[in-house]
Amino acid sequence: MTKGFDDLLKKVSECSKKTVAVAVAEDAPVLEAIKAAKEQGIADAILVGNKAKMEEIAATLNMDLSQYEVINEEDNIQAALKAVSLVHDGKADMYMKGLIDTKNFLKSVLDKEVGLRTGKPLSHVCVFEVKGVDHLLFLTDVAFMTYPTLEDKVAIIENTVEVCHACGINEPKVAPIAAVEVVNPKMPCTVDAAELVKMNEEGKITGCIVDGPLSMDMAIDKEAASHKGGAGRKIAGDADVLLFPDIHAGNLVYKVLTHLCEMKNGCILTGTAAPVILTSRSDSFETKINSIALAAVVAESMKH
Amino acid sequence: MTKGFDDLLKKVSECSKKTVAVAVAEDAPVLEAIKAAKEQGIADAILVGNKAKMEEIAATLNMDLSQYEVINEEDNIQAALKAVSLVHDGKADMYMKGLIDTKNFLKSVLDKEVGLRTGKPLSHVCVFEVKGVDHLLFLTDVAFMTYPTLEDKVAIIENTVEVCHACGINEPKVAPIAAVEVVNPKMPCTVDAAELVKMNEEGKITGCIVDGPLSMDMAIDKEAASHKGGAGRKIAGDADVLLFPDIHAGNLVYKVLTHLCEMKNGCILTGTAAPVILTSRSDSFETKINSIALAAVVAESMKH
Repeated sequence: MTKGFDDLLKKVSECSKKTVAVAVAEDAPVLEAIKAAKEQGIADAILVGNKAKMEEIAATLNMDLSQYEVINEEDNIQAALKAVSLVHDGKADMYMKGLIDTKNFLKSVLDKEVGLRTGKPLSHVCVFEVKGVDHLLFLTDVAFMTYPTLEDKVAIIENTVEVCHACGINEPKVAPIAAVEVVNPKMPCTVDAAELVKMNEEGKITGCIVDGPLSMDMAIDKEAASHKGGAGRKIAGDADVLLFPDIHAGNLVYKVLTHLCEMKNGCILTGTAAPVILTSRSDSFETKINSIALAAVVAESMKH
Repeated sequence: MTKGFDDLLKKVSECSKKTVAVAVAEDAPVLEAIKAAKEQGIADAILVGNKAKMEEIAATLNMDLSQYEVINEEDNIQAALKAVSLVHDGKADMYMKGLIDTKNFLKSVLDKEVGLRTGKPLSHVCVFEVKGVDHLLFLTDVAFMTYPTLEDKVAIIENTVEVCHACGINEPKVAPIAAVEVVNPKMPCTVDAAELVKMNEEGKITGCIVDGPLSMDMAIDKEAASHKGGAGRKIAGDADVLLFPDIHAGNLVYKVLTHLCEMKNGCILTGTAAPVILTSRSDSFETKINSIALAAVVAESMKH
């Protein structure tokens, strides 16, 4: 049972060693996380980018670059294409963003020849261990898909359920959440929620249990759910996956959790042929490492 | 300076004593809060509803009903109309929901003859004291307005700024929040945010400073805002009012705060001729009292 990041890190230690290819690796916080990930046995790395700049940063971090494969490529776009092709060709297992803007990084992810396209829509999942919740929460989508349609939501669920399975959660409980718990034709996300439940019941969405629309307390607070008569529901405070109506709801909740709650988290981009790590400047050192660990577990699961 | 509910309660003690009229008062948690509010000098009450039932409940609460004006009216709709008319006629200062469903309670609020209609749209504000934020946060709208238009958002800001002023915040900082900080035509709430900023600059929205679209961290986390270059902005981690894109974003954040954060809160309905207290069954005892205190401060300010 994976209840927190300690369990997840243990899971990583049981996998074969994974390698992350870093696009434009001359980024101090990214190299610091890569160094720690190697030291903790989470992942090796191939670093693609400006080697001279990497050496400068490595010196300040007391990082021995000779322990890594380093590919010198001073053009950012080319460096990203080289790094992603390593994953595409199976020489690395995960793909990580360095000092390159998100737009160009995503272009490399979606490159038709050397990228990680699968034909499925991409979505982002952020995994949280939060004080007050006794299991991991998978929040989606808080960063990538803006206004998902019903079809998009099906893809998001499929992408996220794969991540849950990789983390050892065999039948995750997926809650399309909203302000209310009843279907209201004037609130499209509640109509979508009912549709997703139906598709799950009809076997069109598999590997998980979908119940919604659910309010946040019904989804994550067992005591509140029991007070509100959640006993008869498939999900009563024990949701694994929180599916947000749109990116604003998702991102605002994500930011409250990261800025006001005691928590650990890690995030990856999914729907790709290999996990993609797209941490941001504001992510903590620990979040970057957790994201690499999460990617490693997902990469292991994708091999089987 | 009102930084938390202790300051707010102190403010109440400096006001003339206020009276709350309760619709269908035979509700144990509501009577318990009314009793505590009286004992703490926050407010007196006129209780309208089934007197026999009130007496039963009062006995279990060790509450002396003879200290209150009690009006016996066993029909819920009539009881609500009677209670709201007391506020309408100036015999009470605030109106509170008891054991009556929200729909019928709101009908009494909006009653053309004895209700509290002002012609302005109603909106809900929930005031939070949250660990990690050094001042009160006014969240709107997390419970009432579902998908506010730009015009609605102007009304929500006006309603909420009045509450801020009543709480001693003379020029509240209002942040229309979103997942992003740049205006994107594909994200209507960011376009609205820019429009609200412009209206504020042009003097069409007064008594406050509007800046947005802002991400949650830029709105409430001074350190994060300073890292992200917020120094040049009107709001940089010091927002008082968080204006949500829609009820889902608002309500999901509200539930995370109440269920996962260390906090105190109180909520009222605004846009009415007198503050309306519409607490829900799941609100804590303390939240109910804080809501009465908030209403008292707003009622005081409305008299001037």
